[in-house]
Amino acid sequence: MKTIYSEDHRLHHARLELIDGTLKPAVEMPSRADTVLARVREVGLGSVDTPTRHPRTAIERVHAPAYVAFLEQAWSLWTATGRAHDALPLNWPIRGFRGREPEAIDGKLSYYSFDAGSPITAGTWQAAISAVDVALTGVDVLNAGARSVFSLCRPPGHHAAADYYGGYCFLNNAAIAAQALRDQGAARVAILDVDYHHGNGTQSIFYERSDVYFLSIHGDPLQEFPYFLGYADELGEASGQGFNRNYPLRWGSGFDLWSAALKDACKVISDYRADALVVSLGVDTFEKDPISQFKLKSPDYLEIGRTIAALKLPTLFAMEGGYAVAEIGVNAVNVLSGFDEAAG
Amino acid sequence: MKTIYSEDHRLHHARLELIDGTLKPAVEMPSRADTVLARVREVGLGSVDTPTRHPRTAIERVHAPAYVAFLEQAWSLWTATGRAHDALPLNWPIRGFRGREPEAIDGKLSYYSFDAGSPITAGTWQAAISAVDVALTGVDVLNAGARSVFSLCRPPGHHAAADYYGGYCFLNNAAIAAQALRDQGAARVAILDVDYHHGNGTQSIFYERSDVYFLSIHGDPLQEFPYFLGYADELGEASGQGFNRNYPLRWGSGFDLWSAALKDACKVISDYRADALVVSLGVDTFEKDPISQFKLKSPDYLEIGRTIAALKLPTLFAMEGGYAVAEIGVNAVNVLSGFDEAAG
Ligand SMILES: [Zn+2]
Ligand SMILES: [Zn+2]
Repeated sequence: MKTIYSEDHRLHHARLELIDGTLKPAVEMPSRADTVLARVREVGLGSVDTPTRHPRTAIERVHAPAYVAFLEQAWSLWTATGRAHDALPLNWPIRGFRGREPEAIDGKLSYYSFDAGSPITAGTWQAAISAVDVALTGVDVLNAGARSVFSLCRPPGHHAAADYYGGYCFLNNAAIAAQALRDQGAARVAILDVDYHHGNGTQSIFYERSDVYFLSIHGDPLQEFPYFLGYADELGEASGQGFNRNYPLRWGSGFDLWSAALKDACKVISDYRADALVVSLGVDTFEKDPISQFKLKSPDYLEIGRTIAALKLPTLFAMEGGYAVAEIGVNAVNVLSGFDEAAG
Repeated sequence: MKTIYSEDHRLHHARLELIDGTLKPAVEMPSRADTVLARVREVGLGSVDTPTRHPRTAIERVHAPAYVAFLEQAWSLWTATGRAHDALPLNWPIRGFRGREPEAIDGKLSYYSFDAGSPITAGTWQAAISAVDVALTGVDVLNAGARSVFSLCRPPGHHAAADYYGGYCFLNNAAIAAQALRDQGAARVAILDVDYHHGNGTQSIFYERSDVYFLSIHGDPLQEFPYFLGYADELGEASGQGFNRNYPLRWGSGFDLWSAALKDACKVISDYRADALVVSLGVDTFEKDPISQFKLKSPDYLEIGRTIAALKLPTLFAMEGGYAVAEIGVNAVNVLSGFDEAAG
């Protein structure tokens, strides 16, 4: 399958994230994409194409325009206050606070984010819109008739909601791609999120809609980031009732439990009669991932690809997490190779 | 007037807080209380007494028992995961997230907080309950007939709500004192918050009640922490409608604007016919405060004390913020001396 990739991801290179009670070197780093790209080439997965620029309207089909404008301006507002280091928020409007955007940039960062682990840097906006183009060019490839495509997005997207960032995600590449598939003719789109973390942003974007079915297999929110979404009883609301499915798994879960969840999710997608599938492809389910607690092994990812291929759907893989940099290439590309092998 | 003070405040000594996009040495430090105590003694304000221990029920009249239990256990849960440095959360349940307490300590910290600037240390719980005893012993002094008392609380309290901490505050000393005054016979209690920052915690605790009137003069939330509460249109709700008053002032405001707000607030308190007054006494309104943007000068604090004394109410001063350590003693004690002088 084709890979869509842009060098612009390098423009987002955060230095430090707040985790474990302290600032540590950011695990979401440019070398992640390099390793994946190198593996794509090593196994000869297919051509590697650069994305084409898409209109901003596609982003605003999913994200609030005021939020998009904030992301675009954040770095210049931050540096206008005399600071040259990466921007981090300091507090958050939890229960009981009001939802009004402050004037001060520190307040805006606080208003539009949900964690202190996602620094905004000089190049974050450019990298984020480039990752969206990588996803939307993948949509173009599918619409041109391809069975599948790999959008090697970075930064990732699935934690970003309509109007907030977090979890290293700023614009929700997978959600924007799913919406573009809908807007370009697919009646029903499924999003399968196999990243270790719950795709809270994607879920919240489509939670009241029946035309995009969101499914996620992830660390139990009682134990794992983002903590406050991803429970099994979240089934959608309003028109979206019955079109959301979560498979929270406990720390230490291995491929036996994980693949049982995947099989169930694929059955749901099949019954839904989706016209297209977007896979939020995170490989932080890997046993050696530095911030995660599942026990998947490299050959398991081949099997994941084969299982997804059996759905026989036009499939866009959008890169999400995975922080064991040495193995992220092998694991991500194993999913794609397994898919190609089974798709024939 | 009497000062109530406990050495236990030293048990809370945070190392670093997230502010300005990075971890900086915590400005809320033990020497703050030392400076104030030294000045109390220097001017001969009155006797300095140690607090008596009060039952936990007084805390749970204001804070959720599950939150209090969390605070008590947080450090041991944190260190049980092999960490010895101060505990900080990493993400927060903003709009769209659910309100369920996670099992993992990192998730609990995230659930029960609203910022990344309030580290929990080995001694935070002991210091926080000791600050509550300082406040409640102040209530005892008033109930024994004193016109006024100074509860030299540390850590401060006014940002702490019924079930979350933040802004260097863990238990809301002023709110607990006001509730104790109510429970011990005062029909109407006013809380006047003169700290530079909005007393979001206190406001939220009493927002739907008419028996405790909350008034705050502070930096405009469009510009200043905590950003998401403290607007002039927050007037209370339900039974509390009309019993909350905010005076947000822009960065750079001096004593002319500030004292006009104070005079209006005192008029409101007088019209309310309060039986007792709790003053959340922060002096981070000072022109040299390192994290604030008002322009009050040291003599202005004498005038504040005189103006408050003119209300002729039994008055408990509970120490809140103020981070210009060299001058915090002079400024805080100027309020108290001004009060004593006018109270005669
Ligand atoms: Zn992840
Ligand atoms: Zn303050």
